[in-house]
Amino acid sequence: MQIANEPREKGSYVVATYRVRDMQEKLAARAEGIAVGLTVGSWTDLPQAKQPAVLEYCGQVRGIRVLDEADPGALGETHSGSQDQTHSGLVTAEISIAYPVHNFNGTIASILTTVFGKLSMDGEIRLVRLDLGETLQRQFQGPKFGVTGIRDMLHIPDRPLLMSIFKACLGRNVDDLTDAFLEQARGGADLVKDDEIFFSEDYATPEQRVTAFSRAAREVEIETGRKVGYAVNLTGPASKLADRARRLCDLGAGALLFNAVAYGYDILAELAVDPDVTVPLMVHPAVSGALYGSATHGIASDIVLGSLMRLAGADIVIYPSPYGSVTLPRSEGLRLVGALRADSPHKPVLPAPSAGIYPGLVPKLVSDLGTDCIVNAGGAIHGHPGGVVDGASAFMAAITATVQGTSLHEAAENHGPLARALQKWGTGQ
Amino acid sequence: MQIANEPREKGSYVVATYRVRDMQEKLAARAEGIAVGLTVGSWTDLPQAKQPAVLEYCGQVRGIRVLDEADPGALGETHSGSQDQTHSGLVTAEISIAYPVHNFNGTIASILTTVFGKLSMDGEIRLVRLDLGETLQRQFQGPKFGVTGIRDMLHIPDRPLLMSIFKACLGRNVDDLTDAFLEQARGGADLVKDDEIFFSEDYATPEQRVTAFSRAAREVEIETGRKVGYAVNLTGPASKLADRARRLCDLGAGALLFNAVAYGYDILAELAVDPDVTVPLMVHPAVSGALYGSATHGIASDIVLGSLMRLAGADIVIYPSPYGSVTLPRSEGLRLVGALRADSPHKPVLPAPSAGIYPGLVPKLVSDLGTDCIVNAGGAIHGHPGGVVDGASAFMAAITATVQGTSLHEAAENHGPLARALQKWGTGQ
Ligand SMILES: [Mg+2]
Ligand SMILES: [Mg+2]
Repeated sequence: MQIANEPREKGSYVVATYRVRDMQEKLAARAEGIAVGLTVGSWTDLPQAKQPAVLEYCGQVRGIRVLDEADPGALGETHSGSQDQTHSGLVTAEISIAYPVHNFNGTIASILTTVFGKLSMDGEIRLVRLDLGETLQRQFQGPKFGVTGIRDMLHIPDRPLLMSIFKACLGRNVDDLTDAFLEQARGGADLVKDDEIFFSEDYATPEQRVTAFSRAAREVEIETGRKVGYAVNLTGPASKLADRARRLCDLGAGALLFNAVAYGYDILAELAVDPDVTVPLMVHPAVSGALYGSATHGIASDIVLGSLMRLAGADIVIYPSPYGSVTLPRSEGLRLVGALRADSPHKPVLPAPSAGIYPGLVPKLVSDLGTDCIVNAGGAIHGHPGGVVDGASAFMAAITATVQGTSLHEAAENHGPLARALQKWGTGQ
Repeated sequence: MQIANEPREKGSYVVATYRVRDMQEKLAARAEGIAVGLTVGSWTDLPQAKQPAVLEYCGQVRGIRVLDEADPGALGETHSGSQDQTHSGLVTAEISIAYPVHNFNGTIASILTTVFGKLSMDGEIRLVRLDLGETLQRQFQGPKFGVTGIRDMLHIPDRPLLMSIFKACLGRNVDDLTDAFLEQARGGADLVKDDEIFFSEDYATPEQRVTAFSRAAREVEIETGRKVGYAVNLTGPASKLADRARRLCDLGAGALLFNAVAYGYDILAELAVDPDVTVPLMVHPAVSGALYGSATHGIASDIVLGSLMRLAGADIVIYPSPYGSVTLPRSEGLRLVGALRADSPHKPVLPAPSAGIYPGLVPKLVSDLGTDCIVNAGGAIHGHPGGVVDGASAFMAAITATVQGTSLHEAAENHGPLARALQKWGTGQ
């Protein structure tokens, strides 16, 4: 087909790469079927007179690569499969398709529906890469704050941030929760984060919590000189979220925790461009595993939680760390963080690896991610033998030592809470 | 743990069932960990005085069932695995957890975030059943039209509806598309549906299309006495969808096609309760395969496209038929349709199995689904040897014959277009 080789303006395509399992001899036709079928529908049946008008909406096959243990394959050509693969006739392959940016309408729904709408239902197929390209990226503002904006807001110029997670929220009244907030704030947390499953509209509404906790945060600031931000769970009917977000900002929220996958990327994107949303948007990864969890279906985690979240304007992305029980393999986590920071017209996003984080892991975290990250902890703050204040303080000692290049064991000599944390949880080595 | 056996008001729980792979001896603790961890966070650490207040938010383990070939297992107890399974120590099991309805806030995001938020990232785990319960269902209005409302609107009391899909939309101007609409309408289609990937905001906006096609539909009504509805793709920024939906209704849309998975369930739910959205909501399954495609991860298709779409208020759900290239196994398709129709406070939803539908399949469709369904076809209308009008007309002849209990071959004796369709595509037997 001649379409694939037409020259086009660089950057005006979104290139999606799919991993599929199919008969090798069917790959070329399948790729063409995607490029044409998911854009202009059919090509050969178009009257000649209409072809030029339609051509600019047609997708292009950018590459077909057979993933073969015997021969890793190369872009743009197909190779024969290994013994095993040719036996069944099936090979695993990657197909790259370029979609014209003007097929979309500036919504993430239009991108997802085009690049992995019908195709998501086509048997064993996974969207493994999504190169958004600068033309499309420039249609979105991306993160309003990003790393620098968050640092400026919290007056923390360079070290990793410490975020503490409520041990539990449901069924606890505002006074009780305020005590819990105060403990975490006094210990030294920069941010204190709601449970993502906290949806109370009666005994402790988001408005009541923000009001009470920002009063508590002011107390702590007077005591210690430190600012503590409360990341409140932004909840409620979809069409009321923007109003509530503005209201929570006015009441003193430090950040808005948002279940972006459950609500939809475009809702996040509209919150991000709202000038009255004056605090960072913190994405919780709830439900994302339903998209990225399988190795053979769905969408890769660095797209789900990485490039698409940044495009939509997340300032902070929480993701499962490779250390805890809810985990992402280390290589996947690093790819995800790569997407949050890659060269792009958009500000970089602050990554917050979560689950299973204890003070002894801080040097490893910083060595993996650098200092632009959030150390996000729950169990190892609340479960500290000395209590919550010691738990948070042990983390902050670990962060300070790591940034200064001091070993944790050396730092622990002068810091009892850190010593007890290292004794309880070790250093992960 | 004593919590699991507390008596509660019936129907005030949502019961989620997960398929997991784990060590058999870990299942009980894992189930308890879910029930408590995804609700009140921790139980044993709560001061006794606070337990009663928190108890009513705590989840309950409803059953653990080992799926074992040698012994299918039973709810509420664990069985030993087969040779193979015990060798690795891993078994496949189903864990059922009941979540109190008052943990949610009337949004589908709150349900999804609770029942499969963090849990979706917990390795090999799939949400396979979701019993919403009547208490929760009554917090939603469900479909505004449902099967009866759609039949009333289109004046089609009992037979299956015929829906025709544009062969292609992108890059075609309104005049050209109007010609294509007219052909499909003249052939006898009850509904004509946009491509879900059509997002034009310039050369053929939704408003322009609805205006032109409803004029065309009036022509066809004058010629034939038949009503034809245009299912226009509802697109644009999330916060503008409701306004556009109302406008498109005013301009004469027959239905609103909506990429509900790409946009989010709660946006659909708000459209459904909007009194100015006066036409049926037709859900397109785009992106849904990214959630349901894997056998071991994600969420079952009868939840993604079935019970949750009905809860959110879809009137019509398009889903991949078991006949075409983009397919769902027949048993899964039937389970999905079961969810669209099951006994519930909500109106039943009209199923529209799609992909690979040709006239010879109509008796099979009706035998599987009954007459309350939409026969949704593209290729076998546009690819008919006699052209689009014959293509649609062959389908309608097949529908009429099937409803009257006449065999297609008998009907084809007096219907040239049906005869040629049967000759080209057969009867799928
Ligand atoms: Mg939590
Ligand atoms: Mg189509």
